[in-house]
Amino acid sequence: MKNISVFSVVACVTLLFGRLGMAQAGDPLPSWSDGAAKSAVVAFVRRVTEAGSRDFVPQSERIATFDNDGTLWAEQPVYFQLLFAIDRVKELAPHHPEWKTKEPFASLLKGDMASALAGGEHATLELVMETHAGMTTDEFEAQVSKWIASAKHPKTGRPLTEMVYQPMLELLAYLKANGFKSFIVSGGGIEFMRPWVERVYGIPPEQVIGSSIKVTFEQRGGAPVLVRQPTLKFLNDKDGKPVGIHHHIGRRPLAAFGNSDGDLQMLQWTTSGAGGGFAMYIHHTDGEREWSYDRKSSIGRLDKGLDEALAKGWTVVDMKRDWLVVFPPNR
Amino acid sequence: MKNISVFSVVACVTLLFGRLGMAQAGDPLPSWSDGAAKSAVVAFVRRVTEAGSRDFVPQSERIATFDNDGTLWAEQPVYFQLLFAIDRVKELAPHHPEWKTKEPFASLLKGDMASALAGGEHATLELVMETHAGMTTDEFEAQVSKWIASAKHPKTGRPLTEMVYQPMLELLAYLKANGFKSFIVSGGGIEFMRPWVERVYGIPPEQVIGSSIKVTFEQRGGAPVLVRQPTLKFLNDKDGKPVGIHHHIGRRPLAAFGNSDGDLQMLQWTTSGAGGGFAMYIHHTDGEREWSYDRKSSIGRLDKGLDEALAKGWTVVDMKRDWLVVFPPNR
Repeated sequence: MKNISVFSVVACVTLLFGRLGMAQAGDPLPSWSDGAAKSAVVAFVRRVTEAGSRDFVPQSERIATFDNDGTLWAEQPVYFQLLFAIDRVKELAPHHPEWKTKEPFASLLKGDMASALAGGEHATLELVMETHAGMTTDEFEAQVSKWIASAKHPKTGRPLTEMVYQPMLELLAYLKANGFKSFIVSGGGIEFMRPWVERVYGIPPEQVIGSSIKVTFEQRGGAPVLVRQPTLKFLNDKDGKPVGIHHHIGRRPLAAFGNSDGDLQMLQWTTSGAGGGFAMYIHHTDGEREWSYDRKSSIGRLDKGLDEALAKGWTVVDMKRDWLVVFPPNR
Repeated sequence: MKNISVFSVVACVTLLFGRLGMAQAGDPLPSWSDGAAKSAVVAFVRRVTEAGSRDFVPQSERIATFDNDGTLWAEQPVYFQLLFAIDRVKELAPHHPEWKTKEPFASLLKGDMASALAGGEHATLELVMETHAGMTTDEFEAQVSKWIASAKHPKTGRPLTEMVYQPMLELLAYLKANGFKSFIVSGGGIEFMRPWVERVYGIPPEQVIGSSIKVTFEQRGGAPVLVRQPTLKFLNDKDGKPVGIHHHIGRRPLAAFGNSDGDLQMLQWTTSGAGGGFAMYIHHTDGEREWSYDRKSSIGRLDKGLDEALAKGWTVVDMKRDWLVVFPPNR
C-alpha cells in the first residue's frame, strides 16, 4: 500500500503541477544543447498542448511514434537484434550440422558478419525470423529476457540496454509529461523489443509496433499455446511503417522521430495530417562519441530522407552539435 | 486551462481516493443484481488490485479484453456492421448494375437478409470487407462516422450506439477505476469500430483489435494516403483472437469477456496464464428485454463455450437474472 500511495502522490504532483514543477526543476531536456532542434521540439509541444493555442490537440490524440534502431538506441556496427540471432545460431548449431555449409549461417558461425549481411536488410530480417521461430511465444520471451540481461556491445562493452540515447530518453519523458502516448515503430521484431522496452524506455509492450512472423494458436497437453512459425508476416519498414501505425493505432501520429530512409514514409504520413505534424530526423554525425554515417551506409542509410527533410523544413538533429551527451552515464 | 485543472483534480481524487470515493458513492455496478456473477467479478478485481493480496498484479499488467458484438452491444437480428454494409450496397448499387443478379448483393438489395446471410459468418465478413474497400482510410472513417451518427436499430428504433449494455458500460468504468486497460477484441472490422468506440465505451482507437483488410501506402497528388484493398488480411475470430491479442498487446489478458463460441479461444488463453485469469461469458437468456439465443443460433452461437464454461467454473452471466437493466435509459 505504501508503494502505491507514493506512486499516486508522485503521479498527482506530476499531473497537477507538471509544468510548474518542470519550470522549477529546470530544463526538461538537459542533454540537448540550446539550438534549432531543441527549440523546434519545445515550440511544437507548447503549440499543441497549451490551453488557448490555436493548434491545441486533446490529450487522447497526442500520439508520437519513434523508430528504435538508430533513433532510440545505437545500431552500429550491426543491428543489435542480429547479435541476438548470432548468439542463438551458436547455441543451436550443434543441432544443425547442415549450417556449417549453408549461408548465412556458415558465415555467422565463422564470425564473418560482412558475408552474412551481404543479402541486405531483408535477408538479415529473414535470417533473424528464421532463427526466432519454432518455439512458443512464452519461450521466446524468456529467451530474449535472459539474453538482454547480459548482452554487451561488441565495441563499448556496455550492456546493450545502456546503448540508448540519453537525449531521446529525456524527450520521451518530456512528451509523456505533456500528455503524449509514445509508440515504438521499428523494422525490428516486435517480440524482440517487447520484453525490455518498458524497463528501458518506459514504453509498455502494447505500444510497440514492429516486424512480425506468423503465430498460430494450438493446444498442447490441454493447455493453449501460441507457436512462432518461420514465415514473415509483416515487414514494418518504409511503406510498411504507416500501414503498421494505422493497423495498431488507428490514428495519424502528431509527431514522428526517425533516423533513416526506412522512416521516411512514417514522417511523410505524420506531416500530412490536417493540422500538420512534427517530423524529426536524427542525423548520425558524431564519429567520436558514436558513429558517423548517412547517405552511403548499409545500416541506417539516410539519403532520400535527408533531402526531403531539408526541402520540407523538418527538424534534423546534428548529433555532434545538438546533443551534449549521447549515452547515459555509466550506472 | 480551467478544464485541464478540473480534469486533473478529478483524476487525482480518483487515483488517490478511488476506492474510498467509490465506497462512498455506493455500488459501482448498480445495474447488476446481487448474485454469483457480480460477486465473482468484484472478488476478482479485489484479488488482483488490493495491496497485500497474494495475487496482486501491477497496474501495467491489468489487461482486460472484451468481445464487441453480443458482449458490449447487441448483435440481433443481424450484426450491426451488416446494416452498414447494406446501406453501403444500396448507396453504391447505381454504379454496380451487375449486383442485381450477383449474390449476396442481389438478396441484400431485395431486403432478403436470410439468403444474403446463408453463406455463414465468413461469407458475411467477406461481403462486408468487399463493400468496405476501394477508398482511403480517411474516407472510410468519414463514411462510418456519418453513418453511425444516424443509424437506428431495425427493431427498437434506437440509435445503434444506444443498443449497448448498461451493465457492461459500468463494468468497463469499474475496471478502469481499478487500473485496468480494456481492449475490444472483435470479429468485426477494426476500422468499423474505431471511429465511435471512444465516445461510446471510453476505449481509444489504439485499444481496438478486429478483423482487417489489406491497406497499402500510396502517393496521390504529392500527398500520402492509405488505401483499403478488397483482400481479407486477418480474421479476428476463434483461433484468431489470441493471435490478434498477442499481436496488438503482447501480454496475456488478466480478464476476458465474451458471449459466443468465437470467444472461446480468447477465454482459454486468458485463463491459462501463470496466475490464472478471469473469464466471463454473457449468456443471452432474456427474450423479452433483449433476445434469447445460444446453442443453435447462427449469430453468436454459444455451445462448446457454454459446456467449457460450466466444466471449468467460468463465470456465466444469465442476462435475465443477473442484469437489472439491459440498455441505457433513453437519452
